[in-house]
Amino acid sequence: MPEAPVIDGETSGDGPEGRGVQAVIAALKAAYQERVSTAHAVREQHANTVTWSKPKLPDAVLFAENTGDVRHAVSLCAAHAVPIVPFGAGSSLEGHVNATRGGISIDTSRMNAIRAVYPEDLCCVVEAGVTRKQLNTYLRDTGLFFPIDPGADASIGGMTATRASGTNAVRYGTMRDNVMAVKAVMPDGTVIDTGQRARKSSAGYDLTHLMVGSEGTLGVMTEITLKLYGIPETIAGGICPFETLEGACDSVIATIQSGVPIARIELLDDAQVRAVNAYSKLELAEKPTLLVEFHGSCAHVEEQASTFGAIAEEFGGGPFHWVTDTEGRNRLWQARHDAYWAARALKPGTDAFATDVCVPISRLAECVAKTKTDLAALDLTGPIVGHVGDGNFHVTVLVDMMDEEEVARAQRFSERLVARALEMDGTSTGEHGIGEGKMAFLEAEFGPAIEVMRALKRAIDPHNIMNPGKIVAV
Amino acid sequence: MPEAPVIDGETSGDGPEGRGVQAVIAALKAAYQERVSTAHAVREQHANTVTWSKPKLPDAVLFAENTGDVRHAVSLCAAHAVPIVPFGAGSSLEGHVNATRGGISIDTSRMNAIRAVYPEDLCCVVEAGVTRKQLNTYLRDTGLFFPIDPGADASIGGMTATRASGTNAVRYGTMRDNVMAVKAVMPDGTVIDTGQRARKSSAGYDLTHLMVGSEGTLGVMTEITLKLYGIPETIAGGICPFETLEGACDSVIATIQSGVPIARIELLDDAQVRAVNAYSKLELAEKPTLLVEFHGSCAHVEEQASTFGAIAEEFGGGPFHWVTDTEGRNRLWQARHDAYWAARALKPGTDAFATDVCVPISRLAECVAKTKTDLAALDLTGPIVGHVGDGNFHVTVLVDMMDEEEVARAQRFSERLVARALEMDGTSTGEHGIGEGKMAFLEAEFGPAIEVMRALKRAIDPHNIMNPGKIVAV
Repeated sequence: MPEAPVIDGETSGDGPEGRGVQAVIAALKAAYQERVSTAHAVREQHANTVTWSKPKLPDAVLFAENTGDVRHAVSLCAAHAVPIVPFGAGSSLEGHVNATRGGISIDTSRMNAIRAVYPEDLCCVVEAGVTRKQLNTYLRDTGLFFPIDPGADASIGGMTATRASGTNAVRYGTMRDNVMAVKAVMPDGTVIDTGQRARKSSAGYDLTHLMVGSEGTLGVMTEITLKLYGIPETIAGGICPFETLEGACDSVIATIQSGVPIARIELLDDAQVRAVNAYSKLELAEKPTLLVEFHGSCAHVEEQASTFGAIAEEFGGGPFHWVTDTEGRNRLWQARHDAYWAARALKPGTDAFATDVCVPISRLAECVAKTKTDLAALDLTGPIVGHVGDGNFHVTVLVDMMDEEEVARAQRFSERLVARALEMDGTSTGEHGIGEGKMAFLEAEFGPAIEVMRALKRAIDPHNIMNPGKIVAV
Repeated sequence: MPEAPVIDGETSGDGPEGRGVQAVIAALKAAYQERVSTAHAVREQHANTVTWSKPKLPDAVLFAENTGDVRHAVSLCAAHAVPIVPFGAGSSLEGHVNATRGGISIDTSRMNAIRAVYPEDLCCVVEAGVTRKQLNTYLRDTGLFFPIDPGADASIGGMTATRASGTNAVRYGTMRDNVMAVKAVMPDGTVIDTGQRARKSSAGYDLTHLMVGSEGTLGVMTEITLKLYGIPETIAGGICPFETLEGACDSVIATIQSGVPIARIELLDDAQVRAVNAYSKLELAEKPTLLVEFHGSCAHVEEQASTFGAIAEEFGGGPFHWVTDTEGRNRLWQARHDAYWAARALKPGTDAFATDVCVPISRLAECVAKTKTDLAALDLTGPIVGHVGDGNFHVTVLVDMMDEEEVARAQRFSERLVARALEMDGTSTGEHGIGEGKMAFLEAEFGPAIEVMRALKRAIDPHNIMNPGKIVAV
């Protein structure tokens, strides 16, 4: 992670805004005592950012325990025009929690109650600070699970805020598809519920989806209603190398077209396989490789694997190995599990930045190939992993932050990658969000629609106190 | 359909608003000649409404042929503060196309080009006036289909605007889940695209979902990007009577929990089965009955049907008959296909009103049972069909519109039904939308969140010209 210099205390200062912050902090301390912190280390921990931009600290952190605390804090901040930065687990990647104008970080990690599980309705209601691992541990005995898995043990609130997804979105969708409703404290302190627990509704504007992906800029989400799924009877994991990138991508397309409800389908490029062979002492063929997973009844999983194997063979893939026992699956999938640290180990001492474009899958092979050419042209190291069922892939760009010239090349690479994705009818971010890091790209992606986004932000947060300086500048 | 008196010419009149309309009509006629109609019959056809409220005619109808026409018309209307009512196929049920303040109806039925089909990406781009049957006829040779089926041959634009669904939402979702992006003319004449063709994105506020279900109140949608699916290798249809309503509903819950990806699961209550036996000369057991459909490979369909049969038996259902040939499936499903006309035939000469609540499926049996009790208490005839996989059901209430007292009882029934659904954490409308007919219910359903909806409407349509008097009053 970049070790950029920390900006401390500059943000609010002694002007009118600074005095407002001090009044809010005093009121919060009176109400919540030691649950309000102005300690440097705490503030610094709440301004983490894995982007090119520098960490900017909030003036104080409130550890909220319930919706009432959040409403109180938001009302105080609204009265003094003090910025609010909602904070979950701090695992976002685009500077979402950076306090661009200081203010109060509202940490929701202590709001970690699982309010209700409704097994018959396949849904649950959780507080925003519940993490996905906590939820799945809690659910284990019910036979249900929550599938969205962004890698990090993110909070459900944060995952909702960034419209997160991960390796099994190809089957289960993203947070967009799995959040049924949210409870949120709006910028004026009003508490709203955006929906009920009905499986579908045509009632009014879709406030749920407005909040999903809003990155804390429209309100602080405090409770989330999530869809759940039955734990599959059988899970099969498999691995299959391909002669070419095109062959791997064409297999993905054909598998999805054939109606196989594949649960995960991940691509490692040859560079990533090489990195994992070195790091994890594996002996995989150093070719573009697909890792797959199938969920279902024993018979159905076998049928899916057999269909996939036949398709892969047709496109120059093989041998295809698959197993259903947990230990065997973990062994076959080790290359994927170790991918990040294997990439880091290629250039010890450097920082790693993950790109996040997503394109229509018909353009995926071409986009990845051109991206690899560009990496070579710019003399950058960047193994690739992709959630290829969605057309989403990440280049783990390894950058020596002390080498200004290399930093500049990496930034150029990132800009050209986004331009390439947009030109292919794709998006600058499949699952990480805009935050501070991709605001310029958002303009390029949406054109005139950006003004509609600005109008929404101004309508809901007229004083621009909710996580200002993210998504759209107003 | 109610034969309420038509209000003609009252809406715009000779005041400033009336003069604005005349200026807009003159400009439109100069540009589009015979594609602009002020004929009474045409205006009346564009103000159809299947609600308790009376039809209100637009001052003129423009038959638009492309986004440019729509943009031109919207810009003219914006300049003169003249209301705009987008019109698709006119099959909405809650007065969505009623011109509450006169103005211009923009008929999109001639915007019926299928712009592009992307088989590898399982999506297509269509103009708003394309109907779902037209699309599926067009797609037939590609091996793909668009699953959302609301019954009527609605336009894709209208289905998007009302967040429509239908019988197979339990597997394929609703328009909410299947619209990837829209092109829309906003109230100031700006044309925006809400997304790209990437399968997922975390870029910015979710304008796509803001437009889906907006019922023409935020802009006129002119093109829609839709998800497509492979036509299943095998389709099985089946029918299964149950001893009790609870048994039928519990089977639905257990089937979904077990992970069977059931494609359709429809409930007919005993009254509806009786109606169909009489109308279609069938000899079905007059009990709560489930109609089911399974999609997949031959082996997987067989496995699904077998699992469902076992579950049904456990809950007092049977005999369960299922077949895979088209003719046999149509025969088994005839009771569902004829349900509406069979209901109408129970009381010839009456009008039929469809209610549309949706509740968590754990509450479905209770909600249907209490609703049947209420029908009896109010001495109303109302057979029930339900998309029970979603918890959504429709009572077809048969009302003699000349009998004021019966009309009043039917309205009371409808209000109590919605109150019952909301009390069970459900929604006033699963798939028909709010329109004019359910605005009061929306307030009850959303509480303080209604103010956020109003803020959105005011931000995007500050002069309230887009389908005014629908969803929220501002």
